[in-house]
Amino acid sequence: MNEKMNALLQKVYELHDLEKAAGVLGWDKQVNMPKKGNLARTQQMSTLGRIRHTMFTSDEMSELIAAAAEEQAEAPYDSFEASLLRVLQYDYDQARKFPTEFVVQMTMVGGQANAAWEEARANSDFAHFLPHLEKVLELTKQRAEYLGYENEPYDALLNQFERGMETAVVRQIFQEAKEALVPLREAIDERLTAVDDSLVHQPFDVAKQQEFARYIAAAIGYDFSRGHLGTAPHPFASSFSRDDARITSRWYPDFLNPSLFGVLHESGHAMYEQGTHPDFARTPLARGASLGFHESQSRMMENVVGRSRSFWQRHFPKLQETFPDALGGATADEFYRAINKVQPSFIRVEADEVNYNLHIILRFELEQAMLTGDLAAADVPAAWNDKMQELLGIVPPNDSEGCLQDIHWSWTGVGYFPTYALGNFYAAQLYEAAQAQNPQIGADMAQGDPASLVAWMGENVHQHGRKYTPDELIHRASGQPLSHAPFIRYINEKFSEIYGL
Amino acid sequence: MNEKMNALLQKVYELHDLEKAAGVLGWDKQVNMPKKGNLARTQQMSTLGRIRHTMFTSDEMSELIAAAAEEQAEAPYDSFEASLLRVLQYDYDQARKFPTEFVVQMTMVGGQANAAWEEARANSDFAHFLPHLEKVLELTKQRAEYLGYENEPYDALLNQFERGMETAVVRQIFQEAKEALVPLREAIDERLTAVDDSLVHQPFDVAKQQEFARYIAAAIGYDFSRGHLGTAPHPFASSFSRDDARITSRWYPDFLNPSLFGVLHESGHAMYEQGTHPDFARTPLARGASLGFHESQSRMMENVVGRSRSFWQRHFPKLQETFPDALGGATADEFYRAINKVQPSFIRVEADEVNYNLHIILRFELEQAMLTGDLAAADVPAAWNDKMQELLGIVPPNDSEGCLQDIHWSWTGVGYFPTYALGNFYAAQLYEAAQAQNPQIGADMAQGDPASLVAWMGENVHQHGRKYTPDELIHRASGQPLSHAPFIRYINEKFSEIYGL
Repeated sequence: MNEKMNALLQKVYELHDLEKAAGVLGWDKQVNMPKKGNLARTQQMSTLGRIRHTMFTSDEMSELIAAAAEEQAEAPYDSFEASLLRVLQYDYDQARKFPTEFVVQMTMVGGQANAAWEEARANSDFAHFLPHLEKVLELTKQRAEYLGYENEPYDALLNQFERGMETAVVRQIFQEAKEALVPLREAIDERLTAVDDSLVHQPFDVAKQQEFARYIAAAIGYDFSRGHLGTAPHPFASSFSRDDARITSRWYPDFLNPSLFGVLHESGHAMYEQGTHPDFARTPLARGASLGFHESQSRMMENVVGRSRSFWQRHFPKLQETFPDALGGATADEFYRAINKVQPSFIRVEADEVNYNLHIILRFELEQAMLTGDLAAADVPAAWNDKMQELLGIVPPNDSEGCLQDIHWSWTGVGYFPTYALGNFYAAQLYEAAQAQNPQIGADMAQGDPASLVAWMGENVHQHGRKYTPDELIHRASGQPLSHAPFIRYINEKFSEIYGL
Repeated sequence: MNEKMNALLQKVYELHDLEKAAGVLGWDKQVNMPKKGNLARTQQMSTLGRIRHTMFTSDEMSELIAAAAEEQAEAPYDSFEASLLRVLQYDYDQARKFPTEFVVQMTMVGGQANAAWEEARANSDFAHFLPHLEKVLELTKQRAEYLGYENEPYDALLNQFERGMETAVVRQIFQEAKEALVPLREAIDERLTAVDDSLVHQPFDVAKQQEFARYIAAAIGYDFSRGHLGTAPHPFASSFSRDDARITSRWYPDFLNPSLFGVLHESGHAMYEQGTHPDFARTPLARGASLGFHESQSRMMENVVGRSRSFWQRHFPKLQETFPDALGGATADEFYRAINKVQPSFIRVEADEVNYNLHIILRFELEQAMLTGDLAAADVPAAWNDKMQELLGIVPPNDSEGCLQDIHWSWTGVGYFPTYALGNFYAAQLYEAAQAQNPQIGADMAQGDPASLVAWMGENVHQHGRKYTPDELIHRASGQPLSHAPFIRYINEKFSEIYGL
């Protein structure tokens, strides 16, 4: 009865193992590999990728999927079998959309653009990156055509990262979010000095930071017996199975936030992977529903939980005990205010909760203009600075701190940025839904305990892995389509209180 | 002209990448992986291994090798092309010798035996391991038949780890070594208290041990820009390319030797890999000639260099500076004597230079007796204890500290042990040859500086990788076949002086 399905699964397991093996090589590259090992590592990863791609896009694979789909035609929509077959067919169709030569060209152009970007950013030399950006845009337009779309080319790009999400929907949500966030940002700008964050800019022993990071990650529910905390210059989370989902962090000796909130953020990602259903092991269902959903879990742990007052009422004594010199004389409330200081800044990854989405909206608007041709690549620096003025009220002193700050365009990742803001919106919406469905969650959170919230996420989000599309999942979990409104309610309430607006 | 060779090389590169990718997964498993990640990791490694094995043992591979061999028929014996073709043909023939069902059976029996051994060792319960050992022996005999041999089955097993080495040669060498080592051990036994090693059994801060380990590994020539020092419960070295050859160590807070000499030992292994010829990259030539040769380089760094008086005359001040409390009042000479204390002990991996080879000879003699049927598996514990009495003059109090101490038999590695002692013999022989060929080496070593010795090893051993068989290589480097005599000269001279014999 499951003969065809089992035959397909053997192949699926192999493909998954190859992908996760490449993942281990990528993790190791960021965490342990000596720089000079990079040539061999790139060759190893590319060999694994090539073998996997050849196996996956073979006609044999298509036949295995078709045979299993016929055998499992009666399987319910929610079943493991039907869900896996949907996802496999979708991935297979996506992978077959590009001619091999195009994939090779994309990889080559991306590789060169990435190297040029690194140099351009180091020297704040946009002219050096410009010809590469032009090529990337040209190929990106071609990519959209290969992928296909109903309404506009950007749909095809966005869909790669947030399946089923339409540009028109994002545009509408971002527009309304902007109209709410810019006035809030302006109101806070007038009272910037109301919050003092010198508390977090003091000497903090790195070994002690690592010790506290382990404490606080465990406190929100990250399972160290199925995880690992490593050090990486650009922190990330990566999982090789639900029983080996890792986090990384960097450590500054004189600034607490990057390690503290970085670890909470990456723990949120890793807890999603740790929470996928055990039956999904070794299949493409064993991961998050989308980049936006993944980001919702990391931002929820970092901000909704990790930057809440009650959480620090609970854990500040332990933090004080760890850093008596720096924090011995402070109160939990002073610390809460310090970690929530709002201050427009040039760099996205350092942005506070109010300004972060404005950074994303800026990139989304520029990407669309570049794609339609309204904005030439050469004019990106000027357009960037204009938008910074309009949205954040500041202008970067150079392109390194402006349009050259992000890696994404260099690796041809146009369409990726919106998922960061969608993550914030999903997070607030899920948080509201969770509280509405189970009043205990609000009560526990008021005590600084996220356990019941995390359990709700496990039940309503984590365990489903990639079984549902983002749209299906947000409907199932919250009964509503994606909306920015819960985030705006959350952000207005929190920061009006902090800044006395 | 090189068309066939290039076609073959593309396949060889892919196979090598797959093997090294599995190597990274294996390294990570020992160093970073949470225990619960083991199931998925085992699946990933086994998928990589299966794909690699299928690719390598295909008829296509055989045809590629044959075509390239025809094309390169005129290539000189020493050339990259001819050497690679020799090694590939040999590996291919070896890999094709086993029927697939036998490989599967071996893996299964080995997996079960390994798990049983772990439990048996923990509880000193030989009976629990016995049925597994019996199965392993049965399959090992079959393995020897599949592999084929000229004189005796043990030849086939030994040849897997030390290509071309004959059991009769090892038997002769071990017999003569035993006749020299047992009297030396007995003479020292009567003067055991002549050396006091309490100096190395004191509190040593682990972070400081790590700092000194980096210093001393760099001092002997390990290149950290192409390496990495990690922590592992069972230290090992592993390389993913000549530009990424790693070492690991463990750290005891109250015993200096394991980290100090462990790091020197693993550095010796890794320096071999770092020193292979760059042209060998991504081919099976990019590794050591054999296990014995690999061990010669690690033991040379650990013992010939790392346990020499002049080396510590040079580096002891730095060690004192690192551990002023423990070592501030000691002299370099006291330290030299402490790290060379001879003391028969039950555990092979803790053995001193005099006793180490006796542990190996014991295992070699038992393995042969088990293979001929002279020794039944059930009688191993009694035979082990008898041999311990005969060779080392002590009897272990239980089987955990006796015949259950080593992992090798459980993973079906009969034939592996001799390479440890061969490594010691190669090391002494190479050291004598190096000094004879270049008098500067002796002068530099008298100053505690191994740089010219390491350069000689680079020229005469490292760069050749796996181009020559062990026998070819020892002849080329020393002009002689393998002999135990240089080791016996070295050990007698060194320990007669220390113990005033």
